[in-house]
Amino acid sequence: VDPGTDGPLVVVGGDAAGMSAAAEARRCDPRRPVVVLERSEHVSYAACGFPYWLGGLVDERDDLVAHDAAYFRERRGIDVRLGHEVAAVDPEARRVELAGGGRVPYGVLVLATGARPALPDVPGTDLPGVHALRDMSSAIALGAALDRLEGGGSALLVGCGPIGLEMAENLCRRGLRIHLIEAADQLAPALHPDVAAPVAHALREGCATSRVDVDLSALRPAPAGRVEAVVDGVPEVHDLVLLATGIVPNAGIGAAAGCRTGPRGALAVDRACRTSVPGILAAGDCATAWHRILERDVWQPLATTANRQGRVAGRTACGREDLFPGILGSWVSEAFGVTFGVTGLDEPAAAEAGFRPTAVARTGRDRSGYMPGATEVCVRLVYDAPTGRLLGGQTAGGRDSANRLRALAVALTARLTVGELAGVDAAYAPPVSALRDPLELAAAAAVGDAP
Amino acid sequence: VDPGTDGPLVVVGGDAAGMSAAAEARRCDPRRPVVVLERSEHVSYAACGFPYWLGGLVDERDDLVAHDAAYFRERRGIDVRLGHEVAAVDPEARRVELAGGGRVPYGVLVLATGARPALPDVPGTDLPGVHALRDMSSAIALGAALDRLEGGGSALLVGCGPIGLEMAENLCRRGLRIHLIEAADQLAPALHPDVAAPVAHALREGCATSRVDVDLSALRPAPAGRVEAVVDGVPEVHDLVLLATGIVPNAGIGAAAGCRTGPRGALAVDRACRTSVPGILAAGDCATAWHRILERDVWQPLATTANRQGRVAGRTACGREDLFPGILGSWVSEAFGVTFGVTGLDEPAAAEAGFRPTAVARTGRDRSGYMPGATEVCVRLVYDAPTGRLLGGQTAGGRDSANRLRALAVALTARLTVGELAGVDAAYAPPVSALRDPLELAAAAAVGDAP
Repeated sequence: VDPGTDGPLVVVGGDAAGMSAAAEARRCDPRRPVVVLERSEHVSYAACGFPYWLGGLVDERDDLVAHDAAYFRERRGIDVRLGHEVAAVDPEARRVELAGGGRVPYGVLVLATGARPALPDVPGTDLPGVHALRDMSSAIALGAALDRLEGGGSALLVGCGPIGLEMAENLCRRGLRIHLIEAADQLAPALHPDVAAPVAHALREGCATSRVDVDLSALRPAPAGRVEAVVDGVPEVHDLVLLATGIVPNAGIGAAAGCRTGPRGALAVDRACRTSVPGILAAGDCATAWHRILERDVWQPLATTANRQGRVAGRTACGREDLFPGILGSWVSEAFGVTFGVTGLDEPAAAEAGFRPTAVARTGRDRSGYMPGATEVCVRLVYDAPTGRLLGGQTAGGRDSANRLRALAVALTARLTVGELAGVDAAYAPPVSALRDPLELAAAAAVGDAP
Repeated sequence: VDPGTDGPLVVVGGDAAGMSAAAEARRCDPRRPVVVLERSEHVSYAACGFPYWLGGLVDERDDLVAHDAAYFRERRGIDVRLGHEVAAVDPEARRVELAGGGRVPYGVLVLATGARPALPDVPGTDLPGVHALRDMSSAIALGAALDRLEGGGSALLVGCGPIGLEMAENLCRRGLRIHLIEAADQLAPALHPDVAAPVAHALREGCATSRVDVDLSALRPAPAGRVEAVVDGVPEVHDLVLLATGIVPNAGIGAAAGCRTGPRGALAVDRACRTSVPGILAAGDCATAWHRILERDVWQPLATTANRQGRVAGRTACGREDLFPGILGSWVSEAFGVTFGVTGLDEPAAAEAGFRPTAVARTGRDRSGYMPGATEVCVRLVYDAPTGRLLGGQTAGGRDSANRLRALAVALTARLTVGELAGVDAAYAPPVSALRDPLELAAAAAVGDAP
């Protein structure tokens, strides 16, 4: 990127990465014009909050909107253009072609085109009663369908990753009977079975049933707007089907413009968020991200990464030197009262990266056992056997377990060994922690200093 | 310590440090006899839990007892002798003299004699209505006094550190009117005023009144077993007075035996918990501890340190090489719904240690702002201006803030800079964290990457 290039900064896509890039560029260089082209009518919303709005925990859809287009226009001086879909990029002429006709010239372009649902390869995914959650429009459509059901009916949720589980809990809140199905052999397949066990247990206590290792082969229209799903060869009829089977990057426009692609077809970017094409940056779910432990680019779309890469792209666009610090693949989710999450590598990924991983798991209480409300937290640590270097961690338990993931993420960033982690002098008080926290116990067990 | 020395391992004191040492020694060397001499009738109890038992949150006093003497005798093969007070140690003859007569020979001695209340230097601290919380006997006495008040009356709490505040909350639970007084100029004087502010606010919303910068000059008997306290020269009468004015190490026996003493008169120990006298180890509240950031010995008695030093002493007693990893001075407390705590250094301590400290504070929400129950967390970071090295952190907020302290403790252990801390890829989900956590915001602000 040549920051001296004439022409405005143009951002394609107005959610987490795009608006972060636009706002950061305004901060760094208040004189450079910034244009955001957003194909929908919505910018800067918290897609991660959709389940809670759909479940009724969050009252108003607008509560999920950090700032609307008017705010960005009037208060931040960003030229946000809604309903502007970009059809193509001409990197030689440095301009974008709009789907509705017209062109917008750019000095620097930031592609923040996000991702779209990866639909299962079965007929019927486009039926009216079949939903997939991604952007605000999809959330509004699902919300309208739920309103029509008036707190009853049955929903088939396809995919038991974090989003599927969050939606299961929240559709339960709406009074639906939930039937979860998963092609893999367990719920939350990204978790080790030991860590997934409390999640599965909580689900069984909730209002949802689940089946794993099952095959969805077709979706068909049924009477009264319902949907017939063929699961392991047997048809069953539901009021609503929600597909939570992952996402794929929206890399088409960038790739067509000549940007090199990386893992999973995402736009390959360096740590300054530059693509391979001069003048074009990319950030967020459409782009790759550098992994701190693997020390290579991966595609693992998350809101945290989108937000952070967006800021980096905004700075790069202004000629500021700033490198994306890299990801650890950290995510967390909560369903049916259990918080579960991951940071760093699991054993297969660690082995593939050339480590010699081994693991230890311990379950302990999140506060002193005699305190009311004490709940169990399972901590599983993956580390390199020859060196003791911590490579990853997973937790499941009460709400606090998320912040144990934060401590593990710090340890991974610092390349601590499990022995060093075991020696950390962490604060203790009966209402908020155990004298020896499960995290400490697991690390200590790895070095033979705990039962 | 010569692990080959004949004679049993004798431990003086049967709480956190002592029983940890005894149990660890049994694990390391099942053949060596282990004797624990405890002057009271109680071993291995959670003194940190007293406020919650006294407040009625914990039903039974026995809930605070991890294991009783019978368990240690029968299940762990440890010769626990209750009601055995040690009067002196003869390091030449390697034996202890009991206050009640008799001697016990030792091969290795572990002094785990704890600490005692540091009473204010005013007349009347020994009146029947005046309490100080330290060991199980003192908790039982205070519990009996509360029972006699039958859920009414007024209590004067002297000292507004963590214990004073925890007791204030719990005596409120018992229906008492609480009057807190503090000689320093704020509540929780160890906290920076910015971090102490939410604590003071919560206290005002609670059932307690507080006065700072006040002077207690005398305690006098009043009719009906009540106590008259002279505060800033004015007498006031309370049903009960609780002194929470700190503690001092019980180092007398060790010092008399020739053990060198260190800061605050505590028994000076090396990182293997050896005192200066051959054959004598010390651990817990009676001993010093190595500070990881200051890189020198300090006296900062905490249950976590007692537990950990006890294990190190048990291993040293068995001839195992093991070094205490050192403390960060981490503590946490909760009162009136606010959790507050510290890890590492504040600015005065950092400056005294030769750093050039500066600080940054940010307040943010503990989860996404649109989620029900989102509460504010204040994070204050102290770092070395020339290098950016993180030197300490303080937090106040909801219950989760304790686990932000854990992440900071990991960062301090790893000697991260604030810039590195700002770049940590921590997990995010709306119910359990904000997209940019207050901890990340504070670290990012320190390097100019946050508002």
